[in-house]
Amino acid sequence: MALVVQKYGGSSVQDADRIKRVAERIVETRRAGNDVVVVVSAMGDFTDELLDLAEKVTPLPPARELDMLLTSGERISNALVAMAIDALGAEARSFTGSQAGVITDAQHGRAKIIDVTPGRVRQALDDGAIALVAGFQGVSQDSKEITTLGRGGSDTTAIALAAGLGADVCEIYTDVDGVYTADPRIVPNASQLRTITYEEMLEMAASGAKILHLRAVEYARAYDIPLHVRSSYTTKPGTVVQGSMEDLPVEQAIITGVAHDRSEAKITVIGVVDHPGTSGKIFRTIADNEINIDMVVQNVSAVGTGKTDVTFTLPKNDGQRAMEALNRSRAELGFDRLLYDDHIGKVSLIGAGMRSHPGVTATFCEALASVDVNIEIISTSEIRISVLTRDTEVDSAVAALHEAFQLGGDQVAEVHAGTGR
Amino acid sequence: MALVVQKYGGSSVQDADRIKRVAERIVETRRAGNDVVVVVSAMGDFTDELLDLAEKVTPLPPARELDMLLTSGERISNALVAMAIDALGAEARSFTGSQAGVITDAQHGRAKIIDVTPGRVRQALDDGAIALVAGFQGVSQDSKEITTLGRGGSDTTAIALAAGLGADVCEIYTDVDGVYTADPRIVPNASQLRTITYEEMLEMAASGAKILHLRAVEYARAYDIPLHVRSSYTTKPGTVVQGSMEDLPVEQAIITGVAHDRSEAKITVIGVVDHPGTSGKIFRTIADNEINIDMVVQNVSAVGTGKTDVTFTLPKNDGQRAMEALNRSRAELGFDRLLYDDHIGKVSLIGAGMRSHPGVTATFCEALASVDVNIEIISTSEIRISVLTRDTEVDSAVAALHEAFQLGGDQVAEVHAGTGR
Repeated sequence: MALVVQKYGGSSVQDADRIKRVAERIVETRRAGNDVVVVVSAMGDFTDELLDLAEKVTPLPPARELDMLLTSGERISNALVAMAIDALGAEARSFTGSQAGVITDAQHGRAKIIDVTPGRVRQALDDGAIALVAGFQGVSQDSKEITTLGRGGSDTTAIALAAGLGADVCEIYTDVDGVYTADPRIVPNASQLRTITYEEMLEMAASGAKILHLRAVEYARAYDIPLHVRSSYTTKPGTVVQGSMEDLPVEQAIITGVAHDRSEAKITVIGVVDHPGTSGKIFRTIADNEINIDMVVQNVSAVGTGKTDVTFTLPKNDGQRAMEALNRSRAELGFDRLLYDDHIGKVSLIGAGMRSHPGVTATFCEALASVDVNIEIISTSEIRISVLTRDTEVDSAVAALHEAFQLGGDQVAEVHAGTGR
Repeated sequence: MALVVQKYGGSSVQDADRIKRVAERIVETRRAGNDVVVVVSAMGDFTDELLDLAEKVTPLPPARELDMLLTSGERISNALVAMAIDALGAEARSFTGSQAGVITDAQHGRAKIIDVTPGRVRQALDDGAIALVAGFQGVSQDSKEITTLGRGGSDTTAIALAAGLGADVCEIYTDVDGVYTADPRIVPNASQLRTITYEEMLEMAASGAKILHLRAVEYARAYDIPLHVRSSYTTKPGTVVQGSMEDLPVEQAIITGVAHDRSEAKITVIGVVDHPGTSGKIFRTIADNEINIDMVVQNVSAVGTGKTDVTFTLPKNDGQRAMEALNRSRAELGFDRLLYDDHIGKVSLIGAGMRSHPGVTATFCEALASVDVNIEIISTSEIRISVLTRDTEVDSAVAALHEAFQLGGDQVAEVHAGTGR
């Protein structure tokens, strides 16, 4: 008997039929003798639809009202799952984030969890009931306002509850079977990972793998909660995210997988003075507009010019704002011109094993050359190599790397409808 | 300067554009120097969509969870209207039914308001803000559970708040210009009533006019709150519901309007024993199944048989259940057979003036005869005459009565998209 926290994403509860199947699984888990806590996202794309609606009403929705609006999605799916559980003869008690003791700071729209005091959830479990907690939301510590947690909020809710309740495992149900060595839609013989360390999963998430949100993985790592990522459509075991790469045997040449990302754009600031502080001003300008930067390259200065170029990547959605911000600061920053390129793709190889294997970078580059993919930017960490290529070359780059590092399995991966989130 | 309560129905807030227009009107009312309280229904058909969804999940949704589910609709529209008001530079503070002090009994799905303690709403008004209150919901007195008020719940919320705050008027915004002498879609020269008494409005609502719910009108009458029914699409004055017919000059031959209803069915119980208590058993059987009966006719018994037929009308939606209930009790009730007819229509003439004018019934019947409409059942009250006809004859019956009692105006009525609710 264990305490299990289950999280079901939007596509797992996208309609009445899926909701009933999810209820069956929940009740089955309970009847096997476990204490069960369930976190449910809003149905399908409902949250995005609410956001669209808000933006039609006003281009700048006030944050407090936006949180009141968006929390309706989880309220709806929570109530429906509770009804389905009731129809199966089991007892379900549903709680809002506030009722479940998810305490946050006051940042509407992207609140951070400060504390979890799940007393009422614990009581429901002691009474033998299944506890349902609305994901993606909490209540602010000081002003007692309803807050939402931002992207990945439901995963984070589930893991935070698992930590607060001392759960044995946190099961993340999605519409793919688990974490794969590459996206099965690009590489049909991608194989499912049985297990992956927290650090590798963090790199996978940061490199474009959409299965888990970075922040949720970080939370799990901090509290040492095993995450079991699995499909809500089957009963097959998925991928367990646990353990640190420090605990892996050093000699094992573990290359874990290939991730890709087409959501970024590239900006090049041409002709900045090659002088201490110049880059700092550029990145401060970007940061002041609350835009995150990913990869950065500063060219080695051309002899005699005293000038250089600075290149960085950022989310496409922030591209226009970043260009406008740089343009406005043109005089102060003193550059010649700006280049903008949103036809880039990022391809990354991840694996704890590359720390101890110097040939990995060479094999990586050779693999890309073998399919005529040009490397525009390269960036590495201890367990990751990332390159920028043309977005049209992403698929062949991923396939070539997957092949070169022999990551393929025998079975062809099953992919279900959905976005792999 | 007055305290104005405004209620906006579902079609008035059915999309982002309508929501913005509603916000403009609200802010305009506030800027004219009034204290403004606004009750907003869920957008368009959202509540019905949630109900459909619940029924797909389980045929018997538990009442508590259904109320949790359904209250999401008002939460969403409330938040969006607050955003739109904010975008216009005015301050809006939104409250759930519970936060606004709408206290109810514990009957989930059809809770009755026990008390209204609108302290926080009063405070918001004193602070100069516009108060938004989610309609259709409250909190149960003892168990502090979220409850919904059943059909007409948002009108009732608005009127109850008006009573609790001592408002000067309650404006009910809908998608028609006001209360008409007949449905303008049947009678193009129907004229808009400037004013109508509570009792006449009650009869109109009970006879099929969909503008206001019976229960809301009754609440307004009990607390003497004037209701101003008007269109959310224009600035024209609508119809004011106020005053008692007792205060009308007796000699005024006021015939107010014609209402019609196609939502009923007719059941005839053939061959019941003509004996005290028989009808009582029939109606108790129906009542035990929580079905409301409207018109009743018991035939004069045929000589020598000792038997008679009992006919009654009820909502079509309850027809099948009623037939099944009577069938199950056949032995006990002792009838020969049951007849079921769902092709009936009810046409009613309403007017305080008919109390003092004996010729009204005669004119009524002559008007119907002139268009060959057969009267199947007739039923009267002090201020209303209702008949059952074939549903296909409803339109000509309504037009003929409207003409015979000279209710037509010169202008052709404007009808906007919507159900006239």
